[in-house]
Amino acid sequence: MVNWPPHATVQRETIMKVGFIGLGAMGSAMASNLVAAGHSVTVWNRSEAATEKLASLGAKVARTPDRAVQGDVLHSMLANDQAVREVFIDGGLLDAMDPGTVHVNHATISVALARQLAEEHARRNLGYVSAPVFGRPDVAAAGKLNILVAGVANAIEKARPLLEAMAAKLWPMGELPERANVVKLAGNFMIVTAIESMAEASVLARAYGVGTADFIELMTSTLFASPVYQGYGKSIADHRFTPPGFALPLGLKDVMLAQEAGHAERVPLPLAGVLRDSLLEALADGAEGMDLSALARVSVRRANLDRRGSD
Amino acid sequence: MVNWPPHATVQRETIMKVGFIGLGAMGSAMASNLVAAGHSVTVWNRSEAATEKLASLGAKVARTPDRAVQGDVLHSMLANDQAVREVFIDGGLLDAMDPGTVHVNHATISVALARQLAEEHARRNLGYVSAPVFGRPDVAAAGKLNILVAGVANAIEKARPLLEAMAAKLWPMGELPERANVVKLAGNFMIVTAIESMAEASVLARAYGVGTADFIELMTSTLFASPVYQGYGKSIADHRFTPPGFALPLGLKDVMLAQEAGHAERVPLPLAGVLRDSLLEALADGAEGMDLSALARVSVRRANLDRRGSD
Amino acid sequence: MVNWPPHATVQRETIMKVGFIGLGAMGSAMASNLVAAGHSVTVWNRSEAATEKLASLGAKVARTPDRAVQGDVLHSMLANDQAVREVFIDGGLLDAMDPGTVHVNHATISVALARQLAEEHARRNLGYVSAPVFGRPDVAAAGKLNILVAGVANAIEKARPLLEAMAAKLWPMGELPERANVVKLAGNFMIVTAIESMAEASVLARAYGVGTADFIELMTSTLFASPVYQGYGKSIADHRFTPPGFALPLGLKDVMLAQEAGHAERVPLPLAGVLRDSLLEALADGAEGMDLSALARVSVRRANLDRRGSD
Amino acid sequence: MVNWPPHATVQRETIMKVGFIGLGAMGSAMASNLVAAGHSVTVWNRSEAATEKLASLGAKVARTPDRAVQGDVLHSMLANDQAVREVFIDGGLLDAMDPGTVHVNHATISVALARQLAEEHARRNLGYVSAPVFGRPDVAAAGKLNILVAGVANAIEKARPLLEAMAAKLWPMGELPERANVVKLAGNFMIVTAIESMAEASVLARAYGVGTADFIELMTSTLFASPVYQGYGKSIADHRFTPPGFALPLGLKDVMLAQEAGHAERVPLPLAGVLRDSLLEALADGAEGMDLSALARVSVRRANLDRRGSD
Repeated sequence: MVNWPPHATVQRETIMKVGFIGLGAMGSAMASNLVAAGHSVTVWNRSEAATEKLASLGAKVARTPDRAVQGDVLHSMLANDQAVREVFIDGGLLDAMDPGTVHVNHATISVALARQLAEEHARRNLGYVSAPVFGRPDVAAAGKLNILVAGVANAIEKARPLLEAMAAKLWPMGELPERANVVKLAGNFMIVTAIESMAEASVLARAYGVGTADFIELMTSTLFASPVYQGYGKSIADHRFTPPGFALPLGLKDVMLAQEAGHAERVPLPLAGVLRDSLLEALADGAEGMDLSALARVSVRRANLDRRGSD
Repeated sequence: MVNWPPHATVQRETIMKVGFIGLGAMGSAMASNLVAAGHSVTVWNRSEAATEKLASLGAKVARTPDRAVQGDVLHSMLANDQAVREVFIDGGLLDAMDPGTVHVNHATISVALARQLAEEHARRNLGYVSAPVFGRPDVAAAGKLNILVAGVANAIEKARPLLEAMAAKLWPMGELPERANVVKLAGNFMIVTAIESMAEASVLARAYGVGTADFIELMTSTLFASPVYQGYGKSIADHRFTPPGFALPLGLKDVMLAQEAGHAERVPLPLAGVLRDSLLEALADGAEGMDLSALARVSVRRANLDRRGSD
Repeated sequence: MVNWPPHATVQRETIMKVGFIGLGAMGSAMASNLVAAGHSVTVWNRSEAATEKLASLGAKVARTPDRAVQGDVLHSMLANDQAVREVFIDGGLLDAMDPGTVHVNHATISVALARQLAEEHARRNLGYVSAPVFGRPDVAAAGKLNILVAGVANAIEKARPLLEAMAAKLWPMGELPERANVVKLAGNFMIVTAIESMAEASVLARAYGVGTADFIELMTSTLFASPVYQGYGKSIADHRFTPPGFALPLGLKDVMLAQEAGHAERVPLPLAGVLRDSLLEALADGAEGMDLSALARVSVRRANLDRRGSD
Repeated sequence: MVNWPPHATVQRETIMKVGFIGLGAMGSAMASNLVAAGHSVTVWNRSEAATEKLASLGAKVARTPDRAVQGDVLHSMLANDQAVREVFIDGGLLDAMDPGTVHVNHATISVALARQLAEEHARRNLGYVSAPVFGRPDVAAAGKLNILVAGVANAIEKARPLLEAMAAKLWPMGELPERANVVKLAGNFMIVTAIESMAEASVLARAYGVGTADFIELMTSTLFASPVYQGYGKSIADHRFTPPGFALPLGLKDVMLAQEAGHAERVPLPLAGVLRDSLLEALADGAEGMDLSALARVSVRRANLDRRGSD
C-alpha cells in the first residue's frame, strides 16, 4: 500500500475556505461535518431547498455554482456521470475555478470520466482528488465514512484535513484518480453480489419450507455477520423494499460501470452479467423506486414461489 | 422459527453411551468434545490411524463400525453421499443398530439422500437427526460450531446435550431432516459466491493498478468484515492456496448439490451456474489439491493478467 | 474421421433375426423400417398397446423382454438412463442374452452409463454399439435419421445393414461407445441454445415493436435457414407449445447430462448454465407438458412484456 | 408485418443522383451495384485509396463529404456510432444536405443513435431510412443482401429502387428507424450465440476424443445446415481465425449494443452476458485481429485442452 505521510505533518487547526456542491442525503451530511470542523463552507445545490439545513448550521449559500468555487478546496457529491459532466465540463464550472484550487470529487462515476476529469483539471492547473466514499447517510453524518483517496500528493495533502473531518479512515489508492473510482465500483459490485447471493440462497431454502427470516438471521449472525449482509438481509427478511436506502436503479448503474471498467481493460466479470440481468428483471417488474434488496423479488419470481404458496 | 424447549428441561449431567463414526479433521475435533463432556464414546474410522488421538483422550476404539453403534446416540461425520451410502445403507450399518437408537448425521449431503435416510431410519424405528455444521476444525475443537438441527422432536431432545457440547449455538430447522441439509448447501453456496465475488472484484481493481492485498484489506475491514470474507480473502491476498482449508473439489460438490436441490424444487440459481464453471475451470487448470480461494486464479487467468504483468 | 469400411463389404441382402425393445414414437418408426427391410423382427414394449402397429406390419411380439433378445442383433430405444438401467442391468436382460449377440443402444443416455454399459457387455462377451440418432419421428419413419455410431468394429459391421435401413447417413465416432453419446448430448445442447437464442432475440425485437412472427420469419429464412431454427422458430412465432415435439423436461435432462459430461472431463459450459436455469424457470411456470420452444415464455416473462402489452 | 406497396408502383428505369459515403469492403460492393444499375453515383471515403475502384467503374469521387450529398438520395455505410456521429452530426454534414434529400443509413448502430438521427433528420426536413444489412462482402457484391428497412413511407419509396439494386430481399420494419437497428443487433446477437454454441459443444466432444472437424461437419451438414453455422464452423474446424471475416471486436461491440438496447427497454438477455465475457476473454488473450470464430479459442482455454493434448 502506498505510504501515507505521518499525521504529525497535518495542521488540523487550519481553517479553510471550502465549497461544497451537491447536497443530497450524502452531500448534506458530509458538508455538515466540514462546517462542524470550523471551516468556512459555501454550498450550492441545484434545488435550493436542500441548502436550508446547511445554512442553519452556519454555511453560506451560493446562488450560482461559480460562487461556491472561490476557495481553497471544492468538494462535490453529484449523482452520476451526467450530473458531473453537466456542471463541471459542459456547464463551464472548471473554467470558473482559480488555478491552484483543489477539487475533491466524491461521486461514484465511471473510470472513463475519471480519466477525462484528471486531464481537464491538469490542463487548467487545478488540483484533482478522486474521493468516493463507502457508507450510508447516517455514517456520513457521524463523520465515519471510509473514503478512497487518489490523486497527486500535494492536492491530497491540501484536502486531507477536510477529508479527515468526514472519515473514519482514508484509504490511499495512489496518484491516478481513476483507481479510487474502480475500487468504489468493485466494492459496489461486491455489494450487489452479496444481495443476489442472499436472494437466491433464501429462495432455495424457502422452497424446502425454511422461512426467509430464519435463514437470513442464521447467515447474518454467523458466517456473514457484516454490515452489508445484515443491512440488506433485514430488508429481504422483512420483504420491505421501500423507501430505498440504495436505490435499485443506481445499483444497476454501478454494475454497468463496473462492466464498462472491465471492458476497457479486458476483464471478464461473469457475476456482473448475472447481476445486470437480475436488476433489469427487477426493473421490468416494477422495482424502479425500490431498494437494491428488491433483487430478492426476482429470485422469488423465477421460482414462482408466490404462486406456489409458502412463507 | 420453530420453538425450542427451554434449556431448563435438559439435564446436562446425564452421561450417555455414544458412538462416533468418521474421524476426519472435523469429526475428530467434534468427538473430542463429547469425550471432554464426560460421555462414554466409542469411535470408528476407516483408517485406524485417525483413532489414536481419540483413544489417548479416553475414547474406546471399535474395530468394526457395528461395534460403534451400540449406544444411545450415534454421530457420524462422513465425507459425502457416497461414503454415507456405503457405510449405512449398502454396508448394512443401519441394520446393526438397535431400534430406538438416534443417529445424528453431521455430513453435508444431498437433499435426496437426506430424504432417503429419513425413510430408512423410520422404517427401522431408528431416530434420525440431520445436523450439518458451520465452522472450521479449529472452531470445532473449541466447541463453538453453529449446528443446524432438523428431525423428530424427541430424537433431537435425546441428542441435544451432545450437540450442545459441540456448539456455540443450535439452529432448529423443524422436523424434516432435509431442511437442515438444504440450509447447509445454501450457506456453502453463499460462501463460494463470496469468494468468486472477491476474485472478480480484485482482478478488476488490479487491472487498474490496485494491489490485490490492498483491495482485500479495504473490503474485509469495512463492508465485508465477516469471517468468510476475511478468511478466504487472506488466502487470495497472499496467493496462498495450499494446504486447502476447504478443498476446492468439495466446494464444487456442494455447489452441484445446491443445483440438484434447486432442480428438484424448480428453483433457478443463476449464480450457481457461474460458480460451477469457475470451479471446473480451476480444476482444469490444476487446482485439484487447492483451497476454494484458488477461484482467484481463474479470474486472473480470464483477464490474462499474469501474462500482462502487474501486481 | 475414422475410416469406414467400403460399402462393398456389406451384404445388404442378408436377412437377420432382430429384437427391438422400446416402441415409443421413435422406436416404433425405427422398428418399422427393420421390418420393411425384410428382417425377422421381434418387439417388446412395457405397455403392450404400442406393439400392435408393429404386429400389423409383420413383427413378432414378445410377452417378456427376454424373448426379444434371442437373435443376431438387439436394438433398444428407451427413454433415459433409468429405463435402460432398469431393463438391462437391474432387470437382468443382459444376462439373458447369448454371447456374441450385438446390442445396439439408440437411447440418449449419460456418458457415465455409456461407459458402464460398455463394461457390462464386454464382461459377458456381448457386442455393444452406441447409436443415438438425430431426427424426429417423421424422419425416423422415412428411414432418414442421422445415426451416430460408436463401438468395436466387428459389432458395428454386424449391425450395419440394420442401421442403414433406418438412416440417411451413419456417422462413425470410433470404438469408444461414449463418444457417440457425448456427441448426441453436445448436439442437443446446441439445439436448446438455438431456441434460447431465438427466444431472447425475439423478445428484444418485440420490446421495440417488431412482431415475433416477422422477426422469426426473417431470421429463419436468411441466416438461420436450417431445420432446427425453422422447426422451433415456428412454434415460437405461433405461440404454440403443445403438444410437445421435443418435451421441455427432456431438454432439461439432456442439458444436465451435457453438464455432467463436462464435469467429468473438466469442461466448463457457460451457455449450459443459462439454459438450465431458463428451463427450470419454464418448469416452475407450468411448462411441464410443453415443447422445448416454450423457453420463449421465459424470455417474455423476464421482460414482463405480456403485462406491458404489445405483440 | 407492415404492408409493402406493390412492385408495380416503382419505376426501376428512373436514374437517380446518388451519394455514397463509406467505402469499406461492404460499402464498396454496395456502391458498385448502384453504379451498375445505371445511377449517377458520387462517392466519398475518408481514405481516398478506397475510391479508386469505384472511380474505375464510373463513379464520381468527391474530395469532401459535402460534395457527395448533393443529390436525391445519400447512402452511408460507416463503421460504428462514433464514425456516424463524427461525420453527420459533429462534422455538420446534415446541415450540408438539401431539405428533401433522403439519407439511407446502412450502418450497424445503437438504437439510441438511431433515435437521435431520426430527430436530427426530421428537424431539417431530411428523409431518413434505417437500412442495416445482413450479408458478407461477397453477398453484397452479388447484390444479394438482405436489407432491413425502416422509416417514413415516402422516404423509403424514394430509396427503394436503389435498395433493390443491392438486395435479394427488402424486409420492411415499419416507420420507426430504430426498429431496423434493433433487429440487426438481435440478428448479430444470434450469430455470436451460434458461434459460442459450436465452440462449447465442440470442446465438450473433443474432451472425449471426438475431433473438432468431425464434430463440426456432422452438425453443420445436418441440424445446423445454414450459412452462419457453416461459415463460422469451417473456421473453427480449421483453427483458422485470420484474416477476420467479421472482426471479433466488432462482434463484441454489437453484443454490447444489444445489451444497451435491452437495458433501455428493460429486457434481460442472459446469453448476451455469457457472450460478452467470452469475447472479452478472447481479446485479453490476443484475439484483437481475429475473426469472431476465435471464440473457439476461449472454450479450449477454459477446459485447458491444449495443455492436456488431444485433437
